[in-house]
This record gives sequence, structure tokens and C-alpha cells, in this order.
Amino acid sequence: MSEPTPHAPRGFAIHTAPVGLADDGRDDFTVLASTVPATVSAVFTRSRFAGPSVLLSREAAADGRAQGVVVLARNANVATGREGEANAREVRESVARTLGVPEAELLIASTGVIGRQYPMEKIRQHLKGLALPFPEGGFDRASRAIMTTDTRPKQVGVRVGGATLVGIAKGVGMMEPDMATLLTFFATDARLDPEEQDRIFRRVMDRTFNAVSIDTDTSTSDTAALFANGLAGDVDPAEFEEALHTVALALVKDIAGDGEGASKLIEVQVTGARDTAQAKRVGKAVVNSPLVKTAVHGCDPNWGRVTMAVGKCSEDTDIDQDRVRVRFGDVEVYPPRAGGADGEDALRDAVADHLRGDEVVIGVDLAIADGAFTVYGCDLTEGYVRLNSEYTT
Amino acid sequence: MSEPTPHAPRGFAIHTAPVGLADDGRDDFTVLASTVPATVSAVFTRSRFAGPSVLLSREAAADGRAQGVVVLARNANVATGREGEANAREVRESVARTLGVPEAELLIASTGVIGRQYPMEKIRQHLKGLALPFPEGGFDRASRAIMTTDTRPKQVGVRVGGATLVGIAKGVGMMEPDMATLLTFFATDARLDPEEQDRIFRRVMDRTFNAVSIDTDTSTSDTAALFANGLAGDVDPAEFEEALHTVALALVKDIAGDGEGASKLIEVQVTGARDTAQAKRVGKAVVNSPLVKTAVHGCDPNWGRVTMAVGKCSEDTDIDQDRVRVRFGDVEVYPPRAGGADGEDALRDAVADHLRGDEVVIGVDLAIADGAFTVYGCDLTEGYVRLNSEYTT
Repeated sequence: MSEPTPHAPRGFAIHTAPVGLADDGRDDFTVLASTVPATVSAVFTRSRFAGPSVLLSREAAADGRAQGVVVLARNANVATGREGEANAREVRESVARTLGVPEAELLIASTGVIGRQYPMEKIRQHLKGLALPFPEGGFDRASRAIMTTDTRPKQVGVRVGGATLVGIAKGVGMMEPDMATLLTFFATDARLDPEEQDRIFRRVMDRTFNAVSIDTDTSTSDTAALFANGLAGDVDPAEFEEALHTVALALVKDIAGDGEGASKLIEVQVTGARDTAQAKRVGKAVVNSPLVKTAVHGCDPNWGRVTMAVGKCSEDTDIDQDRVRVRFGDVEVYPPRAGGADGEDALRDAVADHLRGDEVVIGVDLAIADGAFTVYGCDLTEGYVRLNSEYTT
Repeated sequence: MSEPTPHAPRGFAIHTAPVGLADDGRDDFTVLASTVPATVSAVFTRSRFAGPSVLLSREAAADGRAQGVVVLARNANVATGREGEANAREVRESVARTLGVPEAELLIASTGVIGRQYPMEKIRQHLKGLALPFPEGGFDRASRAIMTTDTRPKQVGVRVGGATLVGIAKGVGMMEPDMATLLTFFATDARLDPEEQDRIFRRVMDRTFNAVSIDTDTSTSDTAALFANGLAGDVDPAEFEEALHTVALALVKDIAGDGEGASKLIEVQVTGARDTAQAKRVGKAVVNSPLVKTAVHGCDPNWGRVTMAVGKCSEDTDIDQDRVRVRFGDVEVYPPRAGGADGEDALRDAVADHLRGDEVVIGVDLAIADGAFTVYGCDLTEGYVRLNSEYTT
């Protein structure tokens, strides 16, 4: 079993600095790299507007070997054309030279405003002074330096066998990961068979980062990568998978609860589906419904909106409203009970009670077969609208 | 050519009354019926949680003959089980008896809160006193009586040949019609071949009501129907189609501009698509993006969010970011121009200017083939969140 630990995996060095991608003096430039060769498993956004960072990193990770990543926060370098691509190559090349690794073994990730060129003069100035050694550890700093509108850093670490696994993530808006999340990096000193590592990584990502949605908007920059340098020796793969799932799920819940403007985490547990894909589709329809999200925000026991959202899956003709069951926490709200208006009032009071908590659980049983999937999201608030009405200006 | 007119089509009688479905004394009960037999064309929500009103009306409209519709506003009668179904049958049967038409020639539509039973005592009380004749005309009253959170009634009328066509609609939230809209009724005294009428109706609905989205949430109650009683004789079908398109598009724009909390109409014109379906998919991705909608609300020239939304169509692998063009009004924002930060600033100023108007036009040219589709929506505001956080309570 894995347990929380403040320790960092051996052999990972981290550099962070305020380079000036935004004008607030915060750290916005991060290099995270193993001091020895490492294997990598990675997944990326499927956006048709993926930026050059994603394109370069996807290429670099393809052979399963990569030693680290350079991360630029507050500017996505997306929709920036040939100039943006040349800039990404220049930054990665320069950092790889400093690290003494081949360019093709370094990932690059970038997150922030779309459609703006990097401030290359500031970046070049900083790269000129960059020199080894970087201090080992420092995941705390890294988890802060990759933030954009996050209100808090996200970091989770566990022990697995004789090794350590740590994960950091950022992401609070433009957030419906499609094959990956925003920026998430895992580092471990465990040693795993590279192909097995990759299968484990993809299985876990699918049940965690691909199960979260803040606002249905898929980022152009989604990147999730696990670096394993083997310095702590072999670990049991099943134990490692459990540890990775623990870390990833904790990050996902932290991300959903910190969604832009969010005040509550929403967990939608779908069971009884034809298959996993249907369970996920129905869960996403519920967790992404603006009317469900606003009702949760207002602690309004308007449970009918959940049935509406399930009903939106109109291609799923095996969903039968006479068999579906819906609950909030332990309170079953549908099918309707006899008892008229008094019964309806008591039910609404019980639902409102559950909604007043920080974590809202909505259960949907489709009663078709035994497919199940749980998705995570957050409420929709005036804060989300305010924040996103004035993001660039 | 069609022209606006205040006249009503001949032979349609309307009854409205405050029956008490909500406790505010407003009209909430409407009967709209032709005084002579009529043909009907109708489309309905594809929601898997369609209410008994939709199920009964779909059946009734199947043979193309129906004389009118009874509409109950402020209670959707959805997710109400067998009791709700029995109530819908009772209401329709009683009204049909008063009108002296077979039950199967009367549609029923209901809109409002989901998951509550009708207040049947109040409704029965009203039905007991219901008697012919209803006054002819009165589409103004009807357009008000079917409202829920609409801030204004929606009614458009035109002349077509010697006939008149009028349309009324309600709908401002839970609004991404799927084969139909919320409640929309058209009445005309034109005479058309029933099959041709139906083809015209479906073609027009597809380009108008199926092209609007307020918040991605598909209603359980969507119903659109055209009643034609032929009292004004034959009309030219092409002319009628144009008139119906004019009326429907005017209603759609009125609906989008009156979206819950909305301050601006957003029109997304997609061109250069592989086919119509792709153009519609891309248009919906843009007009439904919460990040695009909030940026428009804040007049924030954050055009990169439009490229993000186009990129979300990840199955459309023929979308090539090197060929896509994006504009706000007449201002092309993508592909990026050379010229660095100064050029970027000037561009953002021009976009911000366009955003300050009441109607925002976003153009996306995919440069693949010549498929085109235009969709309509509205901005996302704190008012939407406020309104929907406290709808039932």
C-alpha cells in the first residue's frame, strides 16, 4: 500500500524562475529533469489547434525515452504560426544544451493566453544565464511556477515499495481533457518495464484525468507525462498502478475543486450502463450541464435537471426513463414517489441538505447492464463568468 | 415576397388564462386551435426524458392532421411517472371535448420546472368552466401566456400570397434544440399539399431552430408545430418556404438575444467545411464554448479562444490549423500576422470595437470544401448563473 510522503524521488532536479511571461513577478519558467536517463509515458491533447509545444513533445515522447520537461506558464504559444513554432524549438534547444541531453529527449509544455508570441527577448536573456546544477527536489516550487489562474498549487506524493512517486498539476479552466489533461507531470525513481509503465499510465489517466471536466473547453495544450528514472530499483507493477491511481485521483479532485470560480466539487457516479463508454458519456452530460452546475451552486434541489441532462444522450436509445434511478448522495429523487406535494417538499429538503456540503455526489443508475464510470467537475458560479470575462485585458 | 403584417391568419381561435401553475397570477394556460380541420407538421425533442406531452403530441401529429394545441407553462410535467402521464391525458381529453375535436387531433405542450406534478385541482376547476367560442386572433396574448423566464414575448407575422403566417415562440434556457426547439407554434391560413408542407417545415426548422443554442442543455419539452387550415387558399410553395424561413429566423434571433441573462446575440458563420454537418459541428463548438461566451460578454478580444473551440472538434482530422481563417465581424484575427506586439495590440483594439455591439459575428473558414452553416447563441453572464442558481426555490 502507498502512503503520503513529503519525500521527493531521487535524481530529479528542478529549476524555477520569474522570466516575465506575465508582468507580475511570479515564477513562470520551470525545468524538471532527471539527472540520469529516464523512460517517459505521455499523453497529449487531441485538439486540432494543438500548439508547437504539444507537437514537439508528442514527437519526443514517441520512443519512450525522455529526461525531462521545460514548462512556460502564462502564454500558451498556440495559434502563433511559424514564428511560434520557431520560438518553441529555440527554447527547447537551449535548455537541452544546458542539461547536456539531446533535444529529442526533452519535452516542452506551455500554458496560458492563446494567440500571443512569447516575449523572446526576456526568455533569451534568462536562457543565457541558465547553468547546472539545478537543486534536487523542489516540486513545491515547480507546482507553483506552472500555475496560471489556479488559486493553489497541486502536488501529491506517495511511497511505493522502495520508491517514491510525486505528481504535480495545474489547470482550472479550459478544462475538458481529451486524452490528457492540462499540465500534469509525474516523477518517480521506480524502475518499470517501459511497455508495462506505458500501459499502466494510460489506464490510470483514462480513469482520472480523462474523467474531469470544468467547462467542456478542451485545452490546446493538454500534456501529461510520467518520468521514471529507476534509481530506486524495481517495484511491483500492480502496487505502482495503485499508487499512480491514488496520486492522479487526488490531483483530479484537487483540480475539480479548484475549477475557475468553483465552490463545490461534483462527482457523478454512473452505474448500470451498457458499457464504460456510455457511462462516461452520461456522466459528462450531467457534470457539464450548465443548468445542473448552477443548481448545485445555488444549493437548489432542482433534481429534474439531472434527468434532463441524462435525456440529452439521445443517441443512447437504450436509456429508458422508466428504469433510470437518480440520487443525490443517499437520497433517491427519481423515479417519482407517490405522496403528492408534501412528499416532494420533504425530498427537496433532503437534497438541499446534501447540496450544502463541499462535495456533491450525484448517482445515476441506467439499469441496462454493468458498465460504470465516475466523472468529476465543479459548479458554475458568477466567479467563473467574472474571471473569464476579463482574462486577457 | 413576404412582408410584416399585424394581421392574424383566418380561422384560429385562442384562449388564455391564469390557472395557477405558478403563484404569480400570470396567464399560464393556452389553447390555440383552428376552427376548421387543419394539417400539421411537427418536430419534437429527441430527449430520452421527453415528457408525456411530447409523447402524446408526437403520436397525434404522426398522421399530419391536428387542429390545435393546449399549452401549460411553468410546469414541464416531465419525470413525473404514471401520474404525470395520466394528468396529461386528462387535460388533453377535457380540452378536446370542449373543442369538439377527437383527442388525437389535439397536441399538448408543457414547459417549466421538471419533476413536479401539475396542480390538478386548479386545472380541473378551470377546465370545468371552459367553453366555446374562443375569440379569433389573440396571438399576442398566446405569445405571453407560454413564457417562462422569457423577458419578452416572441411573435412574428408575414403575408404570403393571399395568406398570413404567424409564429410564436418561447425559450431562453435549457436551450440546445435537438430536432426542434422549445415551444414554437406557427399558424397559417394558407393551403399546401400536406407532404410538401412537411418537407418545407423540416428544411426550415433545420436551418433555424436547430441552429440555436443558449446553453447546450436540450429541453425535455421541445415542440415545434405548424398548423395550416387552408382558409386563404393555395399559395406558391417556394414563396411559403421563404416566408416560413423569414418568420422562423426572426424568432430564432429574438430567442438567442433573449437567452437567460444574455446581453449579446452571437452569430457564428462557418464556411469552407467538408459538408453541412461539419460546419454545424464547428459552429456549435464555438457558440457553446463557455470561454468564448464569457469573452464576448466582457468585450475581451481574446480571439484565441475561438481557435481553441474549433480545435475541440478533434475527430475532424481534416481541420488544419495552417489553413483555418477566423474573423470577428470584418476583422481577420487568424492566421497570425507578422508585426509583433504592436500589430497584436491594434488587432485586439479592432476586435474589442466589434465586441461592444449588440450582435457579434464570428466567421470561421475551414478552407476544406464549400459546406456552410450559421448558428446562433448568446453570451454567458453572471445574470445566467444568478437566474439558474435560484430557479425552483
